[in-house]
Amino acid sequence: MSEQITPDVLERLARASTATLTTQLFARGLRNTFLAGLAPLDPQRARFVGEAFTLRYIPAREDLDVLAVFRDPLHPQRHAIESIGPGQVLVMDCRGVSRAASAGAILMTRLLRRGAVAVVTDGGLRDTAEIRALGLPAFVAAPAAMTNLALHHAVDMQVPIGCAEVAVFPGDVMVGDEDGVVCIPRELAAEVAAAAAEQEELEAFIQREVDAGAALPGTYPPSEELLARYRASREG
Amino acid sequence: MSEQITPDVLERLARASTATLTTQLFARGLRNTFLAGLAPLDPQRARFVGEAFTLRYIPAREDLDVLAVFRDPLHPQRHAIESIGPGQVLVMDCRGVSRAASAGAILMTRLLRRGAVAVVTDGGLRDTAEIRALGLPAFVAAPAAMTNLALHHAVDMQVPIGCAEVAVFPGDVMVGDEDGVVCIPRELAAEVAAAAAEQEELEAFIQREVDAGAALPGTYPPSEELLARYRASREG
Amino acid sequence: MSEQITPDVLERLARASTATLTTQLFARGLRNTFLAGLAPLDPQRARFVGEAFTLRYIPAREDLDVLAVFRDPLHPQRHAIESIGPGQVLVMDCRGVSRAASAGAILMTRLLRRGAVAVVTDGGLRDTAEIRALGLPAFVAAPAAMTNLALHHAVDMQVPIGCAEVAVFPGDVMVGDEDGVVCIPRELAAEVAAAAAEQEELEAFIQREVDAGAALPGTYPPSEELLARYRASREG
Amino acid sequence: MSEQITPDVLERLARASTATLTTQLFARGLRNTFLAGLAPLDPQRARFVGEAFTLRYIPAREDLDVLAVFRDPLHPQRHAIESIGPGQVLVMDCRGVSRAASAGAILMTRLLRRGAVAVVTDGGLRDTAEIRALGLPAFVAAPAAMTNLALHHAVDMQVPIGCAEVAVFPGDVMVGDEDGVVCIPRELAAEVAAAAAEQEELEAFIQREVDAGAALPGTYPPSEELLARYRASREG
Amino acid sequence: MSEQITPDVLERLARASTATLTTQLFARGLRNTFLAGLAPLDPQRARFVGEAFTLRYIPAREDLDVLAVFRDPLHPQRHAIESIGPGQVLVMDCRGVSRAASAGAILMTRLLRRGAVAVVTDGGLRDTAEIRALGLPAFVAAPAAMTNLALHHAVDMQVPIGCAEVAVFPGDVMVGDEDGVVCIPRELAAEVAAAAAEQEELEAFIQREVDAGAALPGTYPPSEELLARYRASREG
Amino acid sequence: MSEQITPDVLERLARASTATLTTQLFARGLRNTFLAGLAPLDPQRARFVGEAFTLRYIPAREDLDVLAVFRDPLHPQRHAIESIGPGQVLVMDCRGVSRAASAGAILMTRLLRRGAVAVVTDGGLRDTAEIRALGLPAFVAAPAAMTNLALHHAVDMQVPIGCAEVAVFPGDVMVGDEDGVVCIPRELAAEVAAAAAEQEELEAFIQREVDAGAALPGTYPPSEELLARYRASREG
Repeated sequence: MSEQITPDVLERLARASTATLTTQLFARGLRNTFLAGLAPLDPQRARFVGEAFTLRYIPAREDLDVLAVFRDPLHPQRHAIESIGPGQVLVMDCRGVSRAASAGAILMTRLLRRGAVAVVTDGGLRDTAEIRALGLPAFVAAPAAMTNLALHHAVDMQVPIGCAEVAVFPGDVMVGDEDGVVCIPRELAAEVAAAAAEQEELEAFIQREVDAGAALPGTYPPSEELLARYRASREG
Repeated sequence: MSEQITPDVLERLARASTATLTTQLFARGLRNTFLAGLAPLDPQRARFVGEAFTLRYIPAREDLDVLAVFRDPLHPQRHAIESIGPGQVLVMDCRGVSRAASAGAILMTRLLRRGAVAVVTDGGLRDTAEIRALGLPAFVAAPAAMTNLALHHAVDMQVPIGCAEVAVFPGDVMVGDEDGVVCIPRELAAEVAAAAAEQEELEAFIQREVDAGAALPGTYPPSEELLARYRASREG
Repeated sequence: MSEQITPDVLERLARASTATLTTQLFARGLRNTFLAGLAPLDPQRARFVGEAFTLRYIPAREDLDVLAVFRDPLHPQRHAIESIGPGQVLVMDCRGVSRAASAGAILMTRLLRRGAVAVVTDGGLRDTAEIRALGLPAFVAAPAAMTNLALHHAVDMQVPIGCAEVAVFPGDVMVGDEDGVVCIPRELAAEVAAAAAEQEELEAFIQREVDAGAALPGTYPPSEELLARYRASREG
Repeated sequence: MSEQITPDVLERLARASTATLTTQLFARGLRNTFLAGLAPLDPQRARFVGEAFTLRYIPAREDLDVLAVFRDPLHPQRHAIESIGPGQVLVMDCRGVSRAASAGAILMTRLLRRGAVAVVTDGGLRDTAEIRALGLPAFVAAPAAMTNLALHHAVDMQVPIGCAEVAVFPGDVMVGDEDGVVCIPRELAAEVAAAAAEQEELEAFIQREVDAGAALPGTYPPSEELLARYRASREG
Repeated sequence: MSEQITPDVLERLARASTATLTTQLFARGLRNTFLAGLAPLDPQRARFVGEAFTLRYIPAREDLDVLAVFRDPLHPQRHAIESIGPGQVLVMDCRGVSRAASAGAILMTRLLRRGAVAVVTDGGLRDTAEIRALGLPAFVAAPAAMTNLALHHAVDMQVPIGCAEVAVFPGDVMVGDEDGVVCIPRELAAEVAAAAAEQEELEAFIQREVDAGAALPGTYPPSEELLARYRASREG
Repeated sequence: MSEQITPDVLERLARASTATLTTQLFARGLRNTFLAGLAPLDPQRARFVGEAFTLRYIPAREDLDVLAVFRDPLHPQRHAIESIGPGQVLVMDCRGVSRAASAGAILMTRLLRRGAVAVVTDGGLRDTAEIRALGLPAFVAAPAAMTNLALHHAVDMQVPIGCAEVAVFPGDVMVGDEDGVVCIPRELAAEVAAAAAEQEELEAFIQREVDAGAALPGTYPPSEELLARYRASREG
């Protein structure tokens, strides 16, 4: 987590779509950065950008995963919530098992109070109506009422994890919108943010051309002639 | 189906969330009571509580499952609809196969007229726009236009079934909300209803504390000190 | 694609539900015509009818599927978009792999400008918020931000394909509503349209009876007596 | 289970391959009669023919499915074993869940002693080495050591079930070979047996032709000329 | 990993079947201890018992997972192999993804030379013919030739993992036979070993009774009378 | 299919393992070349190398896929068999659906007579005992008795396909061994064959070192010192 993610990088990423960001990552050889199969609890609250704070679950064991474990303030799930900081995103590895929750409304309220900007899990979430009401962007494999203890054993935090079969390292930059969530390796965040801003500006121009009736050849991708017009338009 | 489910048990269950109910069942050793993978046709109409009336399908056979079968008023699907009573929930076992419907709008209208309070299926439903308009809470693996005859052979009713890989016995109490559906064994319903009411009251108190900025340790789960304040608040 | 689909056939199909249409196909021995597992991006914009224009993807190969391929105006994905005509529906075979997109907002804009009436894919779509804003009916296995190049290699168009494990031939008639999408073999379209119109009229009558409290026996399916009343009501 | 299955029908079926039998069922409109996804514990002991005796499991419930249940001689799993008769095949519906067993070596020994000819399950089997040693043909979704109580609740026997997503009625004729298991509806068994015998004789002739170098056209399917030679060969 | 696993515990476990062991774990409330879906590369070499040494993979990232990484002797996969000791079992968490290998013949040779007794993975293995020839018991989700780097990023070792959706802690006792692999929590190993030995002795007696024609009632489970005979037979 | 595959390239590939070949493809940026999930009918007959001849199936349609279609000698399945030539491998795209066969023993006999060297399908095969007896290497998702017509509609041949979610172009070089099947893009075959031969020679040397007790560091990957010894050993 060496490099600092500057505010203007975050700002640029906040304006870029996940479609653009995955294209930029694809252009750099990264084909598996989109957390497929997750959906926002509230499509109107899908947009977020923040640094990954990871929590790892393994399958539950009946003798270990009982309600009493939460009395320990260092229980990894609870400890993770109390360790997360402003601007971070809680990303949970539930091995894609969504028959049980990975958290509920009280924890999500605390998360919000601590300044977290979103929650992402490839397991379930419970109390989804309340979480939606909180306004915290939340991406989930499926709502699930059953307590996490039934299927998930919280084991450690801030280690590299898989989430929705994508590698997520602590400090990676997570971006969400209505399409879903992309994980940007921390060391590529600045470069990708800059390239994405450029791509989006050009594509907005192209989109207007196509909207006005232009055919794809010469427009998307743009011909030299179109690029010249685009550059002129920016200078105008 | 020996024990009676009293109106006040139903009332308490109607106020409890499925999250709370699964926690109470988990506390009693039951880890597999949530019907994962089903979604409400209308999230605004997800809340219900009622007793399970079961219908069982096996895979269809082309020579048996033809349109003419419905001329028989004792065809199990039709007979089930005409046998269901006020306050019941039709729960259908489609083996998780949602490429075909398990019922459509006309049957769901009749269901409503007979006083049923909800329908739950791990198969598909057709005419979903009309069913949504009926206002009947409906949980489904996926909408599916194809008639049930294509993949499902209705075989008997009011037998124990699996639905979404959860055991459902006739007379069990089904509760639904936005998280999904939980099946409460009939003999546990009264006990779980009482415990859930208590849990919800305490958690509402905790939720307010956390909302106001309290950290998790000492709050969730509550310390003796917090519990004392909670008890005082109730007596107040 | 020999037979012509006349405007009144399309009009009838546009008024029929996919539930009715699959029943009519089932009655003709076709049990696998519903594209299960696809959902509309916008349930308010699910209704469409049009002729299938097919595009086929195979799995991607890293050395072939690079951003530069789109410079070729004959790249099958781009060429398909520029070849589609008024009243057609773009149907894409992504082998059910929805971890990557099969198209995005710029292409969908062009599709709309060319007169297409809908897009159907068993893969993903990106820029889903923008596509929803376009008003183009779109059915998709899941939103997915990642570019199609990551997992899909566009290989040819207007060949028979599988989409959501249903056979789709170029020129087949696709109909969509809130339940999903049905594929009607072109040669059956006129016959099915006529039969569906009749079925819907009768079922509307039945629905009113059931809504008014009629029991299923003698009503659904209708007795001779009810059919007589129905016929009288039409002549009235 | 009205019609009697005569010994010569069983004998004919015992000589037919499951490939031939599914073709004959397909020719009669039945496309879903092969229990896909099951494998023989011992490929050298895959051949069997017998009448289905069914046992149905639903998902387990922790409070009901404890070791003590087996003390009841009428527990459906144990009762089924003690009810099965000579020439029958135990067919178990485990909803395709093979993470736990549906039976083990002691029960399979008893099955054999009672004259059963095979066991077929879409769940697991435990003690597979011992069962293989017994010589009882056994088809299974996967070996699985865990007791059935962990995931399966035996609920009733001799009811229609689904096994590997195929409808199986008590008394249907099950045939197994190295390809797997086919379920022949009881009422079609005699007709299918006769047709299969004819098909196999002709195909053996065709196979020899192809083996000797004949091209497919005119041979498979056979031309009138080849059929004449075939008939002559039989009379010879 | 506090408690010592004594040689006689290991010896007892080595003689117990995984079926018996899962029953003993089930009797102690543990229902999810069997690693379903894994098969031995060589059914003749399925038997093993040893302590778990864990290795954890997350999804690969193209820029991190290149052939050059193996030049680092501390690369977790290589380091794990060089850290494993006599009597241990390498257990790998591949998230159930078996499209790529988790190891190959050279590493497995080294594993054997270091005294390991088995390898268990819910991913793939490559060079399976060579590994089979080594004689090392190996359980795998599927053979897979592709290098682990394509899909798996080795991240740490000797941490708790999930393997085939079962919790495995370093030092747990793994036992394999033809049915598959069971994970016994280290702290239960001695108790389970003793109980399993007793159960197997009794069941061998029961098996002989059933083999000789005894019916299940009174035999399995055994009546008091049978138990008396069993006890007498041991004293004899 | 421009470049010729020379006999010595085929010979080198025939001696290389699929593990080595996928590593060489991985080194060239190709991560998805292994056809996961397929198994040889006969592990003793898994080795083959040959050029891909492709056949494409889409989902069946009941009115099109009837037994009579085979009377047409140009039916794509039959036509493909009669078009395949010496040294080729029949590779079939069944969309991963293995509940029905893609071919049976008569066609496989003809395939062998025409000089084909193997068959690879991500669907099923029927008559597997007979096919095994033929000695033709055959890789399959699962044995399945049901005729292809039930689920598969043969549509065209010698087009690019997906098989087991890997892109296969006509003329690509397929190699099989006990691990499974790899697809080598035709244009890379010569280069990969040469590199694989070198890798295998070096790894055989390393394997002997490890077998003799060498630790991994300095051996695998080899140090400069070891490489020097290796080179000396070859010159020796």
